[in-house]
Amino acid sequence: MKRVRLIIAYDGTNYCGWQVQINGITVEEVLNKALKDLLNEEIAVIGASRTDSGVHAMGNVAVFDTETRIPAEKISFALNQRLPNDIRIQKSDEVPLDWHPRYRDSTKTYEYKILNRRFPDPLQRFYTHFMYMPLDEQKMKEAAEYIVGEHDFASFCSAGSQVESTVRTVYSLSVNKRDDVISIRITGNGFLYNMVRIIVGTLIKVGLGVYPPEHVKEIIEAKDRYVAGPKAPACGLTLVGIEYSE
Amino acid sequence: MKRVRLIIAYDGTNYCGWQVQINGITVEEVLNKALKDLLNEEIAVIGASRTDSGVHAMGNVAVFDTETRIPAEKISFALNQRLPNDIRIQKSDEVPLDWHPRYRDSTKTYEYKILNRRFPDPLQRFYTHFMYMPLDEQKMKEAAEYIVGEHDFASFCSAGSQVESTVRTVYSLSVNKRDDVISIRITGNGFLYNMVRIIVGTLIKVGLGVYPPEHVKEIIEAKDRYVAGPKAPACGLTLVGIEYSE
Repeated sequence: MKRVRLIIAYDGTNYCGWQVQINGITVEEVLNKALKDLLNEEIAVIGASRTDSGVHAMGNVAVFDTETRIPAEKISFALNQRLPNDIRIQKSDEVPLDWHPRYRDSTKTYEYKILNRRFPDPLQRFYTHFMYMPLDEQKMKEAAEYIVGEHDFASFCSAGSQVESTVRTVYSLSVNKRDDVISIRITGNGFLYNMVRIIVGTLIKVGLGVYPPEHVKEIIEAKDRYVAGPKAPACGLTLVGIEYSE
Repeated sequence: MKRVRLIIAYDGTNYCGWQVQINGITVEEVLNKALKDLLNEEIAVIGASRTDSGVHAMGNVAVFDTETRIPAEKISFALNQRLPNDIRIQKSDEVPLDWHPRYRDSTKTYEYKILNRRFPDPLQRFYTHFMYMPLDEQKMKEAAEYIVGEHDFASFCSAGSQVESTVRTVYSLSVNKRDDVISIRITGNGFLYNMVRIIVGTLIKVGLGVYPPEHVKEIIEAKDRYVAGPKAPACGLTLVGIEYSE
């Protein structure tokens, strides 16, 4: 038996997120089905990040165990033949049998894109959050500085998650505008439930002038979800990648 | 009566091109229908560029005549409420009754995007042409220089178009690589049927090393469609915009 690791990119538009559930089709179940067809074994992948409904990924990570003789590196090509074109394996390799994508130190990077212009752009509608009201990205940059570092992010965690601690470390949080697109890129050692989308929703309030940048400091200190901004829509969010300290 | 001009962006993925036809739904007919519903008049728009099936647009231009009292500038907002989200009006204004989007001097700019990497990216699948084989963009740049200028582009024109002359002027043709995406941007005073996609198909042959860059000179001189490269797929092509010498 061997353990195979997959780097997976997907367009989350038509999926109810990563994790298998009853409400609709998920990336995890489509992968399990394609792997079963390919390997003639019951396969249950273990994913690193359980992305929400509508969230995209360029580099989510998953592992599975198999008896197949197919070399791990070749599985990516064979699997892509059996996957819908909104899911594509970027890489496959073999890892030790005890290698687990969640129970080890990792750094995750997410990117959130806001299309800030007068009219929507049909060519970007699936991968950006459209906003008509002008955002002040300089103020958003200022606000972002308060979020970087180790903090108790309880104010940025949706109800319904059971975690021992709400303390996380954000290594970097950049806000950059290019043409009409504001890109918010955040890297950290882990994120709470909806944390990235709530941080973005809060930065949007700052960009609109509703909160002054320094108010973000108070929001963190409050440790209360209700003082932070709303959760930004899923379509603008992409899991860029996960780095493991091997 | 007044003549209203529309600047139109659309995702061509689900349309059989611009022009009304029997095979399937087109951007032109969807616009006519939405305008009829909005203005309670029979409307027949006149488009500047009859983009092919699957080709996208950021700035196609169309005009129509109407008796409506709605100010021309407001029509964009009202019309977007009635259009599917893969078509969005970017601007509407009033023009003289004799202003015709095709029968006047204009400069058109198209962009073609090639995703050149090992595996497809689901997030770019609708708007780029994926190629696994590595392309040499330096050679493509060299080849592009032969195309710039006034030439008889008969070698780059698909059969089935009735035009008096196949002479056109290409003002600029740039090839740039950013990350995994090669963007080919071409500006000219007009393009023959499939001309941009055949130029791109020819540049791809150069990028693959099938043709040396200087062979493009011979292709132009041959004035024979069969010596040029194949027509590149529609999904990678976007009509960026049209400029009129007012």
